[in-house]
Amino acid sequence: MSACETSRVDFAGQNGRPRILIVGAGFAGLSAAKHLAKADVEITIVDRRNFHLFQPLLYQVATAALNPSDIAYPIRSIFRKQRNVASILLAEVVGVDCQGRTVQLEDGECLGYEYLIVAAGATHSYFGHDEWRKHAPGLKTVEDALDMRRRIFDAYEQAERYPDLASEYLNFVVVGAGPTGVELAGAMVEIAVHALRQEFDRIDPGQAHVTLVEASSRVLAAYTEPLGKSARRQLEELGVEVRTDTLVTEISERSVVFDDGSTLPTRTVFWAAGVQAADLMQELGSDRDRVGRVVVQPDLSLDGHPEVFVIGDAASVTSQGKPVPGTAPAAMQQGRHAAEQILADLSAKPRNSFRYRDKGSLATIGRARAVAQLPRLHFSGVAAWLAWLFVHVFFLIGFRNRTFVILSWAWNYITFRRGARIITKVGSGREK
Amino acid sequence: MSACETSRVDFAGQNGRPRILIVGAGFAGLSAAKHLAKADVEITIVDRRNFHLFQPLLYQVATAALNPSDIAYPIRSIFRKQRNVASILLAEVVGVDCQGRTVQLEDGECLGYEYLIVAAGATHSYFGHDEWRKHAPGLKTVEDALDMRRRIFDAYEQAERYPDLASEYLNFVVVGAGPTGVELAGAMVEIAVHALRQEFDRIDPGQAHVTLVEASSRVLAAYTEPLGKSARRQLEELGVEVRTDTLVTEISERSVVFDDGSTLPTRTVFWAAGVQAADLMQELGSDRDRVGRVVVQPDLSLDGHPEVFVIGDAASVTSQGKPVPGTAPAAMQQGRHAAEQILADLSAKPRNSFRYRDKGSLATIGRARAVAQLPRLHFSGVAAWLAWLFVHVFFLIGFRNRTFVILSWAWNYITFRRGARIITKVGSGREK
Repeated sequence: MSACETSRVDFAGQNGRPRILIVGAGFAGLSAAKHLAKADVEITIVDRRNFHLFQPLLYQVATAALNPSDIAYPIRSIFRKQRNVASILLAEVVGVDCQGRTVQLEDGECLGYEYLIVAAGATHSYFGHDEWRKHAPGLKTVEDALDMRRRIFDAYEQAERYPDLASEYLNFVVVGAGPTGVELAGAMVEIAVHALRQEFDRIDPGQAHVTLVEASSRVLAAYTEPLGKSARRQLEELGVEVRTDTLVTEISERSVVFDDGSTLPTRTVFWAAGVQAADLMQELGSDRDRVGRVVVQPDLSLDGHPEVFVIGDAASVTSQGKPVPGTAPAAMQQGRHAAEQILADLSAKPRNSFRYRDKGSLATIGRARAVAQLPRLHFSGVAAWLAWLFVHVFFLIGFRNRTFVILSWAWNYITFRRGARIITKVGSGREK
Repeated sequence: MSACETSRVDFAGQNGRPRILIVGAGFAGLSAAKHLAKADVEITIVDRRNFHLFQPLLYQVATAALNPSDIAYPIRSIFRKQRNVASILLAEVVGVDCQGRTVQLEDGECLGYEYLIVAAGATHSYFGHDEWRKHAPGLKTVEDALDMRRRIFDAYEQAERYPDLASEYLNFVVVGAGPTGVELAGAMVEIAVHALRQEFDRIDPGQAHVTLVEASSRVLAAYTEPLGKSARRQLEELGVEVRTDTLVTEISERSVVFDDGSTLPTRTVFWAAGVQAADLMQELGSDRDRVGRVVVQPDLSLDGHPEVFVIGDAASVTSQGKPVPGTAPAAMQQGRHAAEQILADLSAKPRNSFRYRDKGSLATIGRARAVAQLPRLHFSGVAAWLAWLFVHVFFLIGFRNRTFVILSWAWNYITFRRGARIITKVGSGREK
């Protein structure tokens, strides 16, 4: 990082206003920037992508219900009218020098700051089996979603071409029964049973078999036990085979092996089992937990560096003694909290500890199937599904995106079909 | 191809009905299959893609106005109810044995036929300069369109990051002033002037400069001279620099060189200058024209092989002594004609010569700007643009696609913005 000392470039103006550098425009970074809208500061936002992605609906892109641009919104458009956003850069941060108060971009350029907000998010964790990545992609980026979509629909095409291998191609496996795994498994059954009905000549898509594998004893472990059981029952009613207490010990191109020694022949495995913090967290020189998240102070700043905040999925945060979940609402609350601490500093007021307010959780399973865990009310089925629809549309950014998502859902609901069922070739989400 | 003689696989049933094999589900192949809907035959359709693509609107995907799935429709869905379509295969045809009446797929499998309809389309031609392909992509596939979209919007991002190079990044060049080149150039100016307005801090997107280069002396050479002049005037009013009588002699990563010796620094060049027939045409053993299209008999069949038809952009067809253009309406008419010749054979009636009926041409230039050349009426401006909108929506397949295209256009028109402005990484359209 020493290169930065001599060639420091100050993007924000030199007019004495504090420069706030936000790394990542996910839910956490966006929320921080918005809550600083009226502050007398100069904000720079750096992201590897030109858009904010509404990740909770990414599985719907993977299952051809929505288009990528329905759930993505250009970062520049979001801040078009926020005047203290001095610069938005499509770039990757590769290093942080907390002593020198600079970050380094992938092309060597350095940005100075008075405040740094790191909201770089998370990626998949294969628990030491990175060789599985190739056969069992996860779902974090638009490219991941398009890759999944290609794999799902291509499996049916290959089964049609090679009926001898149909049983292999029509076995789908999802590893991990958290919200993403549950949503993916449910949607994949609906594709088999409804969307592809009557369209193949040599195979019956309805014969496809979706297996949801979970290492723990429960589906949706973050929910109450009755809701987890309800989710499991709803999945099984759809036709998903749920295998709890089951570990995956091997994933290859043509099969998955479980810890009971059994082998499931399959060409399509998706990974929804584990996440780890972005690699950038290693650059901060702070304590990290076992999944790489930076352990932050109660006010979300770094130990010894009150001017650096780490928020969102990249941070290990506790509130009232309990770990804060890696969800969009928690990330937004953390973004707001970091912004408020900076505003407190600027008006010479004391800082506060972050306190997570759990407003509830919703997970959808399929058509008119979901579970809802609100602070005082737990329910499932159609009501939970309607709540889920409403909340997700409400939090989407932009009138156009909301309109198109509502229309797509209405069309899907009425016709049982999927509007984005095209197989395209996608670049890897990992390379530049 | 000799491998096929011994390992011939008959996909369609063995019940004595003639097997009709259609290669390619573009406008020509689709039209042939549909006009055979009531025939007592068994149809097999082979395409490298699982969808039919409405190519006339592909430039709108490239310029972020539409999503790929808005203009793509699954081939299986199109033929769900056509009972004589016995098989649809996602596969690539690599060889044709007209003597043995078989085609070979990329995995070595062979398909027999009684009638073969080859509608494999065309690809770009760089006139012997294939090294230009890397720097100047063309627009034939969904991946091409997403690659163009990425290049357009990334150029502005790079200009923002490296203002010293802004003039290079903000120069856009389109080679070829046919309909695709004209549409691309017009849309690119609208992106610069409207869609990105007020979104950058260090550059002014309105400073972007779009140059349309054409080797001949005219814009839209297939239209009448007054309409070509009108198109040129409309382009220039938008701000496009039109350079006719200009040949490109070199394209590199950072510049284009013209035949007058001048060099234009640019990072973004698009190719809309030439097409050539699909490589598969070399396998047919027939005469081909200088762009590789197979020269067909008046009934669109191959000389010496009345059971083989070549139609669409892969065929060199004349009607009443004049060459038939490579447009969607011409391809659809040829598909219908090939189907009718097969129906005539089956009922022991004589065949007819193909006769092209020119129902008119429309080309759009931008917001409320277009030209229309109908058989007895030529006009331009708003009326032509409305006619263009209507015709394109009318010929789109599927209620959902029509609805979403109309809504996207309405949103674009009202807000001046582009709904699909996300930069994603795309695989090459050329590799498997």
